[in-house]
Order: sequence, then C-alpha cells, then structure tokens
Amino acid sequence: MTLPPEFALIARHFLPLAGEGALGLSDDAALLDVPPGRQLVLAADAMIAGVHFLPDDPPNTIGRKLLRVNLSDLAAMGAVPLGYLMTTAFRRGTTDDWIAGFVAGLAEDQRSFGLAALGGDTVTTPGPTCLSLTILGSVAPGRAIRRVGARPGDDIWVSGTIGDGALGLRVLRGELPDDAAGHLARRYRLPEPRLALGQAIAGVIHAGMDVSDGLVQDLGHLCRAAGCGAELDAAAVPLSPAAAALIAGDAALLPAILTGGDDYELLFTAAPTAAAAVQGASRAAAVPVTRIGRMVEGAPEVQVRGADGRVLTLTRGGWSHF
Amino acid sequence: MTLPPEFALIARHFLPLAGEGALGLSDDAALLDVPPGRQLVLAADAMIAGVHFLPDDPPNTIGRKLLRVNLSDLAAMGAVPLGYLMTTAFRRGTTDDWIAGFVAGLAEDQRSFGLAALGGDTVTTPGPTCLSLTILGSVAPGRAIRRVGARPGDDIWVSGTIGDGALGLRVLRGELPDDAAGHLARRYRLPEPRLALGQAIAGVIHAGMDVSDGLVQDLGHLCRAAGCGAELDAAAVPLSPAAAALIAGDAALLPAILTGGDDYELLFTAAPTAAAAVQGASRAAAVPVTRIGRMVEGAPEVQVRGADGRVLTLTRGGWSHF
Repeated sequence: MTLPPEFALIARHFLPLAGEGALGLSDDAALLDVPPGRQLVLAADAMIAGVHFLPDDPPNTIGRKLLRVNLSDLAAMGAVPLGYLMTTAFRRGTTDDWIAGFVAGLAEDQRSFGLAALGGDTVTTPGPTCLSLTILGSVAPGRAIRRVGARPGDDIWVSGTIGDGALGLRVLRGELPDDAAGHLARRYRLPEPRLALGQAIAGVIHAGMDVSDGLVQDLGHLCRAAGCGAELDAAAVPLSPAAAALIAGDAALLPAILTGGDDYELLFTAAPTAAAAVQGASRAAAVPVTRIGRMVEGAPEVQVRGADGRVLTLTRGGWSHF
Repeated sequence: MTLPPEFALIARHFLPLAGEGALGLSDDAALLDVPPGRQLVLAADAMIAGVHFLPDDPPNTIGRKLLRVNLSDLAAMGAVPLGYLMTTAFRRGTTDDWIAGFVAGLAEDQRSFGLAALGGDTVTTPGPTCLSLTILGSVAPGRAIRRVGARPGDDIWVSGTIGDGALGLRVLRGELPDDAAGHLARRYRLPEPRLALGQAIAGVIHAGMDVSDGLVQDLGHLCRAAGCGAELDAAAVPLSPAAAALIAGDAALLPAILTGGDDYELLFTAAPTAAAAVQGASRAAAVPVTRIGRMVEGAPEVQVRGADGRVLTLTRGGWSHF
C-alpha cells in the first residue's frame, strides 16, 4: 500500500522540521510537556501571498517571515519560544523546489530561535498561497508584558529602527530606489523578533507590544489600554542609515515611516526612574532602544510633534501642520 | 482616533468568542494556565472553500465543522478540550451577515463542547476563504491514545456509522438523492467529535485514531505504525439507515463508504479480552461501537473481505473481486 502524495510531501519536507512532542507528525495531535511552573503564551498569524508577502519573494524568506512575526508576538509578551503548529494552503501548481526552499528557511530559523514544529496541516488551494502559524511560548506566571499599564509621565521607548519594513516594501515594488546593501528589502522580508529584549524588559516596564501595524496606530493601542494620551517626537524616532538617506531626499516619506507597519520592533513605556534599567536590558540583549516620547494625561490619542515642536496631523496618506 | 475596520470587526464578531486567557483579544498573545499535572495536546487543521467545504454551505455550519474536525483530533488522543486559536482569511466581499452566521455557529459549538477562543488573526484574501484552527487539549501524562500499538489478534473497532459524510457530500452535489431527514448532508457539514468515547477508551485500547481520510486508508496507518496487517469485514462496517438504504439500491457505493472520508469516527484496536471494557466505555459515552475486523500477522496492509468472505481489491474508483 503506497502512501498518497500528501503524506510523501509531509515526510519529505515537513518531518525534518518536527521536534520533540510532534510524534513524528504521524499521530492526530502533538503532546507537549509545558515546563513546570510556567504559563503558556499563544499567538497566531496568517499570511496571504500578494497581501502579506510578495508572490515572487524568495521562498526561503516566506516561512521565516511567518515564523518571525509570530516570534515577535512572543517577544512582545516577554516569552520564551516553545514550538509552533503551521497550516499551509499552497497555491495549486506550487513546485517541490519552492516548498523545499520554504522549508529550508524555516529549518534555519528554527535553529536560530530554538524551537521546532509540533504539527500542522498541508493542503492545496485554487487561490493564492495562504499560510497560518500558531506559536507557543512560556513565561513565569504574572511576568508577561501586557499592553495595559502605561501611566502618564512614562517614557515611550522603541527598539531598533522604525520604517525599514514599510520602505522595503516600496523598494521591492520599484517605487523607491534600493539601498546598495539591500537593507530595507531584507527588513521587509525578514523582521527581527526582539526575544532577548522582551525577556529582559519584562518586570522593568509598565506596558508594551510589538509594532506591526504602524508606530502611531500601535501607540494608540497603548493609549486606549491605559486611558491616557501620548506625545511622540517624530525627530527622535530611530532610523536606519538607509531610511535616513531616503527621508533626507524626500521628507514626505515621514508618514510611511511612522505609520507603515511591518516593523516588528518592541514599543513600550516605563517610568523615567526605570531608564537606567531599560538601558541595561538593552545592553544585555544587544538591541538598541530609543526614547521617542512620553505618556500624558488626557484623551487616549497620539500627538506627533515635528522637529520644530509643532503638532503634525495625520491626513489620508500624509501629514499636515495645524 | 477611530479604530480601523479590522479592529471593529474583531470587537463585534470575535470578542464574544474569547475565553479566559484571551485577554480580550487586545494583547499580542494569550496566556493560558495548563491544568497542573496534565500534558498538552495540540492539533491544527486548515479548510478551504470549495475544497473542504462547499462555498454555499450555511455559514453557521462552516466554523463548526472547522472546530469539530479539530475536536475529533483531540478525541482521537483521548484528550479534554482547553481552547483554540483561529485564523480566518475571508474571501474579499464576504458580508458582515456571513461572518455573523459563521461566528454564531462557533458560539453554539463552544458551549456544547466546553471551550473558547484564545486568539487568532483575521485577514482578507483575493482567493477562496481559507480557515485554520489550532486546538489545545490536555491528557493525563502517558494516557494519550496513540496510533502505534496495535497487535496481531486485536479486534478492530469503529464508533458510530461510516460513510455518511462522503455520501452527504454527493447528496449536496446533487449526485445522489437526499434522504428525507437530511441526515447525510448534516453529517458532512457537522461531524460529531467523539470526545467522551476517546476519554473513556484511553487506557483500555492498544491504538487509535480518527477516520478522516477514509476507513481503509486510515486503518492502513494503524497497520504501518504497528508493523502488522488488518482484515476488515466490509459487511460488519456500521451504516446509518440512510446510508444502508442507498447501498441497498446501488452496491457500487461500497467503495465510497469505505474510502470516502469525512467520517470523524474513532477507529481503534483492543485485545479481545478487553471487549467488555470497550463496550462499557461505549455505554458510558453513549456512543455505539462496532467490531469490524482484526489485526493479523504479516505485511502492513488492509485486506477487505466482502459478505461472501472473498477479498475485495481497491482499484481506482472502485473494487474488484480477485
């Protein structure tokens, strides 16, 4: 009795990704022993070809992006990765080579981030490739970073640099010139989940999340959860050299940077007295952090101030001075 | 600052599905306390419109089918449900009413099966609707039902009735006449996960799984895991009155019943001396079970015998006598 192609595909491509508890991907479910005394952290994200990644992105980066955006959710909670389950609905006609590249990227990232697949499902679809990943991590009980908890007077911090992913997408679409090193395109395709930083700042900060939908919008989530406002200094937002070079040539790119999304940096607030501890966590995790504003009393709204101190107002597709 | 439509949709439709640990669907991840001393059980399945369900199936049944096929994986491991994460990629143009129906079905089944949503993601796709669900359950350590473990001489048992789902799909496609009560179509759209039975037979049986890809193929999995063969008595396979009526009119439907899939019944093997315990578990769970064959020494293959005792051989699309 020979196995149907689905099982051959799973054995050839996905079995090498399977970790302890996956039972060789041959049972109906996986078995996982959660580390004693730890709380489970769970997130899930979907990605559609042509919506969340470009259909001609290298297959090697696509599975990695899916894994990394989920790892970024764990980072945002201060969690340690445990494993993942993935369902893949591949566009009909997807080649074996494409799947091999997709899986090779995942295998590389599994090693880098210290987790493995626990299970999943593989099907085909007449539509664009549709991927879904559920990630599991753990935290010490009560130690998870939450979005709720920011207080007026808190410093607002962000990790790494902002805007690279959004500019990288425009570069890949041919709307902006590429930086010679390919930094922006790489940041769009391969976000860097800030796991070590998330673990290091848990317990130090008041509130936090990852920036996936745009810095201003995501800061708005922290405001609503806290019931207070935020002032963001646009000039303080950290930029990569590649992003800084682009904005030096065209200041109208600022909204794309502040609202574009695909950053997967950590955004968090902490008491000013905790600044040294935040900087210490940053050094321990080897991830730079930058103070970009402060939480303020008032309505749960984000005020963005330009370099001249004037408030910038977001309009459809851009900003206007009051 | 008003929230974008995605967040309004989540608040309106998905927030009512969220259980404890989901943190109001407003953080980057969920937090779950696994019951102390329990092992976690995890499975994930994807469903595509037009592939795994019919695009004109009532939306009320589609989310329930997705949840139930995953619950069936928990049943197959003897696990108790804990919660789930779901990602939905809705076809562009999906109406608010459709999503309301989809969610109402899920809400109903959450109550029936005693679990709630922990998180997920909602996106749109230019292709057909693509759904993915990861389910979490728990078992006492070492008590999970496994596919490996069947032994020559074991009785082969199956729960409920076989073939209804596969015939129901043909009814919905207009290829077969409907039974007056709509039993077959209902069984295709709403499988019945055998959770109570799975929990009751764990520790009594040698090996088990759920029948999703067709009885003969799935029995082949138990054979390969055990390194022995199986003899299946076709005449012993339990049929619903509706399926029996169809096959009385057309014996050529037998392959559709034995290989069609979409059954979501439990298939398991146990020592003949455990028959009384199996029957006791069946009564306790109020789910009928039927002996349909035995595991035998030899190559990991399934021999199907007809009512006359002759071996039936599966050919492409049908069966032939030797």
